[in-house]
Amino acid sequence: MTAPFFLDCDTGIDDAMAIGWLVASPGVDLVGVSTVSGNLDAAGGARNTLDLLALLGRPDVPVSVGAHDFLDHAYSGGAPEVHGVNGVGEVRLPRAAAEPTGLSGAQAVVEAARAHAGELRLLAIGPFTNIALALELEPRLPELVKEFTVMGGAAMAPGNVSALAEANVANDPLAAHRVFTAGFNLTMIGLDVTMRHVFEESHRQRLLAVGTPGAVAIAQMLEFYFAFYAQRFGRPCAVLHDPLAAAVATGDVELAVAPTVPVVVDHTDGPARGQTIADLRDLYQGFPHTYPGGTRVALEIPGDFAGTLLDRLSTL
Amino acid sequence: MTAPFFLDCDTGIDDAMAIGWLVASPGVDLVGVSTVSGNLDAAGGARNTLDLLALLGRPDVPVSVGAHDFLDHAYSGGAPEVHGVNGVGEVRLPRAAAEPTGLSGAQAVVEAARAHAGELRLLAIGPFTNIALALELEPRLPELVKEFTVMGGAAMAPGNVSALAEANVANDPLAAHRVFTAGFNLTMIGLDVTMRHVFEESHRQRLLAVGTPGAVAIAQMLEFYFAFYAQRFGRPCAVLHDPLAAAVATGDVELAVAPTVPVVVDHTDGPARGQTIADLRDLYQGFPHTYPGGTRVALEIPGDFAGTLLDRLSTL
Repeated sequence: MTAPFFLDCDTGIDDAMAIGWLVASPGVDLVGVSTVSGNLDAAGGARNTLDLLALLGRPDVPVSVGAHDFLDHAYSGGAPEVHGVNGVGEVRLPRAAAEPTGLSGAQAVVEAARAHAGELRLLAIGPFTNIALALELEPRLPELVKEFTVMGGAAMAPGNVSALAEANVANDPLAAHRVFTAGFNLTMIGLDVTMRHVFEESHRQRLLAVGTPGAVAIAQMLEFYFAFYAQRFGRPCAVLHDPLAAAVATGDVELAVAPTVPVVVDHTDGPARGQTIADLRDLYQGFPHTYPGGTRVALEIPGDFAGTLLDRLSTL
Repeated sequence: MTAPFFLDCDTGIDDAMAIGWLVASPGVDLVGVSTVSGNLDAAGGARNTLDLLALLGRPDVPVSVGAHDFLDHAYSGGAPEVHGVNGVGEVRLPRAAAEPTGLSGAQAVVEAARAHAGELRLLAIGPFTNIALALELEPRLPELVKEFTVMGGAAMAPGNVSALAEANVANDPLAAHRVFTAGFNLTMIGLDVTMRHVFEESHRQRLLAVGTPGAVAIAQMLEFYFAFYAQRFGRPCAVLHDPLAAAVATGDVELAVAPTVPVVVDHTDGPARGQTIADLRDLYQGFPHTYPGGTRVALEIPGDFAGTLLDRLSTL
């Protein structure tokens, strides 16, 4: 039995790991991908996605180029210091024959949700612009989508692009606010958990040693990503933002603490712009309440996810 | 050897505990107190403070009535559900003969700072309006004050009056912003630590059994405070906001984790209004840096502070 998954991403090195996770997971039927500007521009992210999917033996997955600009401001460049200018750590992937669909990202999301009504698993690991636009095209999207998992935000953890803001949310806070308050069956995998799961150089070497084109490409990209995180951690390594969200979406990791609480996003121009404001005041009672319309906010994911990820990617 | 202390407060049940701590601490020369609206109005807080100080054998401490309204909005009522209508849990304190000084709170702060230039320990456990006004009267205040300890804010912990905002800061976010960015040698004792130190009914009974008028009065007030916190914790008890800040100010408790980082306050009208935005992005490196002009943000205070507090108040 497989379940239909749709991925919205900005590929991106950790996006590539998430794509690897989805392709390597036997329960996943990847029905489509849309891209959005974030780590790099949406068109570049789509090219990387097509090339990587071909390398992983899935040249058939349709990829749509989504929003280049954000809801209330223009895209102004990605994160070349983190992901490289080409988004995949300057690794040269073989150019795939496939081209993007003619659909916008929002259209592709809506078509997938309608085609798999009540069954679609949606995973968004870039800025939330495409999903916000899809909500305009199809207000019933929250009912059509069975489960929606996002990598983004920070509830109690520090931000990564400002004191409080995480990059995916900070790129388009208005879109994020609309998505978090739309009524999806939504799980937020934010910095509270992603910063606690680290891929080490030993993992990377073992992935490289797998020797298949996909595993080698991802391991090569990680060299660049590791160099960025070395500035933060003092050793070459990387936190596992997007693949952790993918693994939650596929049901492979346990959320030990994940209260369902109201979440809004600060989309003012104030000092908290881009912050996910999760109401965690029940903390001291152990979160006895589940709030209707709330978001499931992951606060603790125990276990050795880096090892699990290495094992899964080693099957590519 | 004693050191000069000046207290700014909104007495208030936990303020009463902090006053008890200061009076009971042999190293403290309490040179004055100012009040501000918060738990109740500034005039009522001054009355409570005068009455309590007289009961504790310190009718000589000058008390000044500070700001009734906040910098950019009017006082609109206190927290009678937490502290009672009279601010001290409906306990009837004997009315002291002393009356407030004719000074404003801001004037009293400035006079104390000038009289004890370079030596004054300032402790603020209510909204920060008086201190912000004192900064207007005396821009050199941050140099005149040796150490400034505040109870207020929440860095990574949830808020207590909104998802993110702590009451003292939320009452006057603009004043708090000015105080946090004025260049004081400033220590923030916020909800990150105060919510972790709890006075239980067994402590309260032992305080009541001390039998002296001051100890009994504080223990009686706590019955009201405990009833409020019973809604949060499921048992009669209370967290120790203001006395914990007092104990940090007097140097009696250890700050195990307390990085010095930039802190600003959201004083917009957005959803994060009243939040203390502490830049804790060095968390994953163990906070190796001390930021000039930053605030020392208490994140961990180990040990049995409730027991220490009971012991100290038992000497009243």
